Amino acid sequence: MELKKYLGCSRAARKLQPADLVLKNARIVNVFTDRVEEGNVAVTNGMIVGIGDYEGRKVIDLEGKYLTSGFIDAHLHLESTLVNPQVLISKAEEHGTTTFIVDPHEVANVSGTAGIDYLLSQTANLPAHVYVMIASCVPSTPIDDNGCTLDAAAMKKYLDNNRVLGLGEVMDCMSVINGDPSMNEKIELFDGKVKDGHAPNLSDEELAAYVMAGVTTDHEGTTYEYVMKERSMGMTCHIREGSAARNLEMIVRGIVENNTNTEGFCFCTDDKHIEDINREGDIDHNVRKAVSMGISPIAAVKMATIQPARCYGLRRTGAVAPGFDADLVVWDSLKNFNAQMVFFKGQLVTRKYVKMPACPPQLMDTVHIGPIDPKKLELRADGKQFPAIRMIPGQILTERADIGLPADPQTGLFRPDGKVDKIAVFERHHATGKVGVGAVLNFGLQGGAIASSVSHDSHNIIAIGDNDADILAAVRELQRTHGGYTIVQDGQVYDTLELPVMGLISDQSYSYVSKKLKKLITRAHRMGVPKDMAPFITLSFMALPVIPSIRLTPRGVYSVTESKFLTGPEAENP
Amino acid sequence: MELKKYLGCSRAARKLQPADLVLKNARIVNVFTDRVEEGNVAVTNGMIVGIGDYEGRKVIDLEGKYLTSGFIDAHLHLESTLVNPQVLISKAEEHGTTTFIVDPHEVANVSGTAGIDYLLSQTANLPAHVYVMIASCVPSTPIDDNGCTLDAAAMKKYLDNNRVLGLGEVMDCMSVINGDPSMNEKIELFDGKVKDGHAPNLSDEELAAYVMAGVTTDHEGTTYEYVMKERSMGMTCHIREGSAARNLEMIVRGIVENNTNTEGFCFCTDDKHIEDINREGDIDHNVRKAVSMGISPIAAVKMATIQPARCYGLRRTGAVAPGFDADLVVWDSLKNFNAQMVFFKGQLVTRKYVKMPACPPQLMDTVHIGPIDPKKLELRADGKQFPAIRMIPGQILTERADIGLPADPQTGLFRPDGKVDKIAVFERHHATGKVGVGAVLNFGLQGGAIASSVSHDSHNIIAIGDNDADILAAVRELQRTHGGYTIVQDGQVYDTLELPVMGLISDQSYSYVSKKLKKLITRAHRMGVPKDMAPFITLSFMALPVIPSIRLTPRGVYSVTESKFLTGPEAENP
Repeated sequence: MELKKYLGCSRAARKLQPADLVLKNARIVNVFTDRVEEGNVAVTNGMIVGIGDYEGRKVIDLEGKYLTSGFIDAHLHLESTLVNPQVLISKAEEHGTTTFIVDPHEVANVSGTAGIDYLLSQTANLPAHVYVMIASCVPSTPIDDNGCTLDAAAMKKYLDNNRVLGLGEVMDCMSVINGDPSMNEKIELFDGKVKDGHAPNLSDEELAAYVMAGVTTDHEGTTYEYVMKERSMGMTCHIREGSAARNLEMIVRGIVENNTNTEGFCFCTDDKHIEDINREGDIDHNVRKAVSMGISPIAAVKMATIQPARCYGLRRTGAVAPGFDADLVVWDSLKNFNAQMVFFKGQLVTRKYVKMPACPPQLMDTVHIGPIDPKKLELRADGKQFPAIRMIPGQILTERADIGLPADPQTGLFRPDGKVDKIAVFERHHATGKVGVGAVLNFGLQGGAIASSVSHDSHNIIAIGDNDADILAAVRELQRTHGGYTIVQDGQVYDTLELPVMGLISDQSYSYVSKKLKKLITRAHRMGVPKDMAPFITLSFMALPVIPSIRLTPRGVYSVTESKFLTGPEAENP
Repeated sequence: MELKKYLGCSRAARKLQPADLVLKNARIVNVFTDRVEEGNVAVTNGMIVGIGDYEGRKVIDLEGKYLTSGFIDAHLHLESTLVNPQVLISKAEEHGTTTFIVDPHEVANVSGTAGIDYLLSQTANLPAHVYVMIASCVPSTPIDDNGCTLDAAAMKKYLDNNRVLGLGEVMDCMSVINGDPSMNEKIELFDGKVKDGHAPNLSDEELAAYVMAGVTTDHEGTTYEYVMKERSMGMTCHIREGSAARNLEMIVRGIVENNTNTEGFCFCTDDKHIEDINREGDIDHNVRKAVSMGISPIAAVKMATIQPARCYGLRRTGAVAPGFDADLVVWDSLKNFNAQMVFFKGQLVTRKYVKMPACPPQLMDTVHIGPIDPKKLELRADGKQFPAIRMIPGQILTERADIGLPADPQTGLFRPDGKVDKIAVFERHHATGKVGVGAVLNFGLQGGAIASSVSHDSHNIIAIGDNDADILAAVRELQRTHGGYTIVQDGQVYDTLELPVMGLISDQSYSYVSKKLKKLITRAHRMGVPKDMAPFITLSFMALPVIPSIRLTPRGVYSVTESKFLTGPEAENP
């Protein structure tokens, strides 16, 4: 800390000068003693300088309300929320989240370091701590068709950036375990820094080998038993409540039933749409839900504050104590957790717009599809078993369902029948013309097509429909808008949410995005997508070849469990 | 980790090749889940690779005995044990301590960076983790007369040493709080690294200012209330059981009575003589005592393993889990904690002597006393109140006692009377001839003098006696031996333990040191030093002007509480 700043703080701490701000009559959650203490919190130069009988130039009487440190989202992808990072962070901050550990994985897959630099620049001057974990698996696996490859050499320039804390979720577990040299190079590059994990369903032996490489966190645990296996090996487990993946209930139930020590747990959202944050909250939602299930409020607050701070080596974040940044949230109660006031470095957070650097033009033109041949969408329905994707509501896991495809009696080709839909993925970065086609169960879409240029992790164009014409029209629409979400019915575009920034992010206001999104989602449900399934988010995970058990890529249907293509040119028996 | 090493570990973890070593039928203390689990621990390349059903090239059946990670001494001064670091570490390791966080404060005060380099070189190739915190207060205060000054510029060379973890105990609290530029420079130099504290008896406001500078640990807490004040500000508290300072009982009693979460506590010895380690143990003693007082064995093990490891950023130390160094201790029970076998990086620790680099000759010639004028030892006993030092058994704190000095009726000079002894400190680094003289209560020495060249932190020659002739003879004896402990009676040297390495460390074997020490200590007690007081260690703290409340330096009697000299040339009213 600069000496002049320190001296101001030290003098204020010792009451030799008034503090800048005093929050008086607070009920302070002390994450070190596990006590709630009544007191006045003095803030100077953006830092908490003392708790006690202080005088301040500005005084706010909290009238006995609860005070905690700002919450920390231990793992999220800012891009997944469709809006400009500023809009998302401002919304999350209203709910008490002031620190964000961001993996710019999506922008990196589309635009490489230019994407990461964009994200860093957009979040540099916000009234929030935004830290970045450098995306480790771009592309996520060697079988992906994405926009850019991010190797250790490209990552080097981030090592000295004090907003870069380590290596982002290492999804390609097998490359780690098998000692793939290029993966090892990335891991070595971030030696001594945090390496986030992504390890659903590893065996005990594989997980041991994975952890041994220095990976210390995971946010993919879906059961209590699995996260306790991870905990037993020292991993920190981020309990996720996102828009699509909701793992809190399963894990917290186990914690409560087994009276498990929560010191190795944090909270995260991973991927959460802004309208969900608006509706149910951000990390405050995780905390509220955990408390409602029986976690003690202080333990829950620790999981949202000091524990993620310690996990990521943030020495001045996560506690209401001297020397910590004055990121402070006033809550109505430790049950409802409704944020009444939010401070970042001692300043009351308002929704004031911060002017951001413009988006470089090349990041606004990233959708490049090869010539589209309708024939490529055809799939023979010859009575043989076809490996279809069965979706699971509330999960991003899928199951393989070997089925006989419903056929058009005249052509002998697969024709969706209301139970089985067609799914297609179009490579969109390098105009290679690759198209993968498959079948999907449980999506229920009828009378049109739905498409998205957000499709993890390569962000090719993914579409589901019950007829080829609408699928093709949807893809052409997203070509026109440089990316987005769209619905097409009877050859007509119903509506499109444009996402021109790398095909991932809108350049419009929140209300514009929100309105469009609501309209599109409502229509998707009317077209048959079950109520308990988020249509676009669920769609966006169907091309992700690192989460079990079966996915579709531009190269064909892929078994994640078996690490092999089941259809397409790279399959053994196509 | 080097790829080849990792691959061997990964393959062994996945049972593709046998492990180097398997410890089977262990009861493993899992510090992450707080459970004791039965299992077999596989070790390869010095690392734990898995727990489960493993085969090994070497198998040891633990027959249900308990297994923990090696214990960590969170803070110690190796020099205080008088023997070569190797001897001390080998002895501590027999008791299950495999990691040592060392502050080379004493050698730095005598010989500066040459002393630190000596300590680093002596501990580089031992079968133990020895980490160094660079001594921050050399000299401990501006009023000290020590051998060397260690400023930020001199410390720079240690920044990239991976055995150097941060800045050693910052004893000069007021320099920190007042923003002294040279102190600030040292603190800034170690930005992002751990800064150990030393903060007995600060007010709430002072402690807040101190913590704010980035100091995160303290080992000086003597009461539960004080350590909880430190905990409430996020400090990690090292519970100390040394030879002289025994703080465990007071603190642990409070923890047990208040059911306090122990996650912010560690154990340390600080200053512990090898014969005390031999007699009652090292960190195992802290653990055993804490458990006997009601701390759960798993909590106590965490305080001795994962908690200090996390505190100092040691990512591969402190747990029995994959990816952690195979520093393992087999215990008879979680009550007695008798170490049965100790492994360092998978190798059984034996008492094999490791050849060390020789001590540079200039470090063997550091005792330089100016001409000794017996007149300087005289103290007028004119009936006025004199600020005497009252010793407290089992503490290194002292109390001021204003007394009328007993007088020789003929000369009117202070003459010890069996209740009040004379104490003197002779500057010994730069032959300045400075001598401080005072009076001490509760030491009880009669019929001679006792002297030491170990006297924190400046390590001048300190002596206590009941007559000037014996005090002077003792000082001359230590001049002859280049430092040591000595007892003189009736002008004759009773015996001397020579400590020629910087006047702090012996160049002889443990048995030589131990025998001499025992002889000297026994004699000191016979001469009147109370049984519950360690004669030489207690003596060695009487010149330390950073611990309340009163001390003697070569410049005179010093009030730590008031930060001023009470006698001598620098006193206001000498």
